[in-house]
Amino acid sequence: MSRFRSSRFGGIEVYVPGEQPRDKKYIKLNTNESPYPPSPAVLSAAGGAAWNLNLYCDPTARRLRAATAEVFGVEPECVLPVNGSDEILDFAFMAFCDSSTAVAYPETSYGFYPVLAGLHGIEKREIPLKKDFSVDCRDYLGLGCTIVIANPNAPTGLALGLEDIEKILRSNPDNVVVVDEAYVDFGAESAIPLTKHYGNLLVTRTFSKSHSLAGARLGFGVACPELIADLTAIKDCTNPYNVNAMTQAAGVAAFEDNGIYMSNCRAVAETRDKTASELRALGFELTDSKANFLFLRHPAVSGGELYARLREKGILVRHFSKPSIEDYNRVTVGSPDEMEAFISAVKEVLHEKG
Amino acid sequence: MSRFRSSRFGGIEVYVPGEQPRDKKYIKLNTNESPYPPSPAVLSAAGGAAWNLNLYCDPTARRLRAATAEVFGVEPECVLPVNGSDEILDFAFMAFCDSSTAVAYPETSYGFYPVLAGLHGIEKREIPLKKDFSVDCRDYLGLGCTIVIANPNAPTGLALGLEDIEKILRSNPDNVVVVDEAYVDFGAESAIPLTKHYGNLLVTRTFSKSHSLAGARLGFGVACPELIADLTAIKDCTNPYNVNAMTQAAGVAAFEDNGIYMSNCRAVAETRDKTASELRALGFELTDSKANFLFLRHPAVSGGELYARLREKGILVRHFSKPSIEDYNRVTVGSPDEMEAFISAVKEVLHEKG
Repeated sequence: MSRFRSSRFGGIEVYVPGEQPRDKKYIKLNTNESPYPPSPAVLSAAGGAAWNLNLYCDPTARRLRAATAEVFGVEPECVLPVNGSDEILDFAFMAFCDSSTAVAYPETSYGFYPVLAGLHGIEKREIPLKKDFSVDCRDYLGLGCTIVIANPNAPTGLALGLEDIEKILRSNPDNVVVVDEAYVDFGAESAIPLTKHYGNLLVTRTFSKSHSLAGARLGFGVACPELIADLTAIKDCTNPYNVNAMTQAAGVAAFEDNGIYMSNCRAVAETRDKTASELRALGFELTDSKANFLFLRHPAVSGGELYARLREKGILVRHFSKPSIEDYNRVTVGSPDEMEAFISAVKEVLHEKG
Repeated sequence: MSRFRSSRFGGIEVYVPGEQPRDKKYIKLNTNESPYPPSPAVLSAAGGAAWNLNLYCDPTARRLRAATAEVFGVEPECVLPVNGSDEILDFAFMAFCDSSTAVAYPETSYGFYPVLAGLHGIEKREIPLKKDFSVDCRDYLGLGCTIVIANPNAPTGLALGLEDIEKILRSNPDNVVVVDEAYVDFGAESAIPLTKHYGNLLVTRTFSKSHSLAGARLGFGVACPELIADLTAIKDCTNPYNVNAMTQAAGVAAFEDNGIYMSNCRAVAETRDKTASELRALGFELTDSKANFLFLRHPAVSGGELYARLREKGILVRHFSKPSIEDYNRVTVGSPDEMEAFISAVKEVLHEKG
């Protein structure tokens, strides 16, 4: 930290992305990427857009908003594309929280929420999960502050039903409820249709997991036009041309190929459920994940040890040092081959433990 | 504006990018884009990166920082790549300004500075230009606040020499001085070598103008490691994976082809100077622009009228409604053919005015 940095940021907590070591080739099951490459039409669209990179991209992302609107049956003015869904979370924290409006979110969830609250000096209300790691919607009724819920939640993978989301929306009519659907395509139900009925609902999505575009940085928000206008104003004040031309083109092409990606998501869900069965047979305890990852622990090996032993064997999974979940690891669902390699490595670890 | 938006943002002024009308095909001389396409190696690198878009990009942009460091003879830890240079300006306003540290900048300059100050609630000290539109470095000595100077300045195109930049740096040792070098490659002198000697200097750059990558969104900052660490902390708290994989690859390739781009910049400067001579012969007054645009007025036609008449003829230039410069237009230097078409259209307008 330099002596010039504003004292506001003296103690900010920085988000730490999943590790990307370069010492050898790993099977990467630590950042919830898709094991499937982008579709040929996406490659072609992104490459085609490169020819005109000397010209600015469309700051209103008109074609991408239209394509998104068509997939979800909403109007284009209900959509804001962003440079990865982290960006729309940042905009939402800025627009809808301040010194008089706190933010509430599950105490165990995406680690970026407390980082954003810290950055913007917003009071945090971290609401504990139930013992089984589920979110109890009753804890979010009538809170009188902005609410952010990842659905399915990370790293637990557990999902809320829409009836619970609606209860939260109805009981907080004067506050924005953000439903972060980064993982929704792998088995949970989207709240996007509810944006037509609830003016306080913002749904955030990403192309990173379900649409094989983590490296392209593309997310979007869906909400009523007034909320989208608020977020667009913040966008235009921080980075008017926030989504580059290649990524805009890739996003349009990915939605035109949506059937391929939804099929990929079903394949990931099948691999997930098959892997979960095999792990249960090996004595693991797992949550009922609806996401593209598993959340697991084993009575015979600590979370930290399993992480370290798998890493030695060339497999990266994600371990969190947070005490409430330190027994666990979050394991991305990779390709069937990768998950076979993972199961073999796990068996070796358990065998070596005796 | 929704009823949920924080009152902090009730009256924010939003940046308005140059228009991008779709009613017909225009010669676009209004957003300072390069008339030259990206080089073949850039197309190939960006397209190649698309194959792995299912994987996250490198949040530390290691290769791109190394390539940038090599071009400028600095260390990689002195470089932070960003999603367009607007993003690093946003980070700098956040990191180095607050309720007790104002920001000073020339009253006529890049319109994004007051927008950022407004967004973050930072006190603005807008310092008038001299009558000839130049920046007087004496106005910036010992200000005791963060300073931002575009060099060359926009929309005037006028540049400060490094000895003036150094005076400002030396007389404000307890404050950060940001030198925004978006247009430096077209004829001004870069302050990047000074970052080794002044711990309070941040130079911001963009690939949008000189490196034909406006649509890819790529900028970077160069400063001492401590300032870069401050800005990186803000980046990691708002958008850890801020620069997508295709753009990172394009940036590396563009710097490997740096000779091509510097040659393009010289061609633009030649076209600029030739066009300026022709305009002077037609009775225009122009500043001595060192950027890839001209700043001009004619005694016989108002700035607003020239803008409108050129638009009717299919040529877009940029007119600003700000009273101190409303007589002027800013005209991007396009290809020689585009500038010939511009000169012809201008002659028609002058002829029609009689």
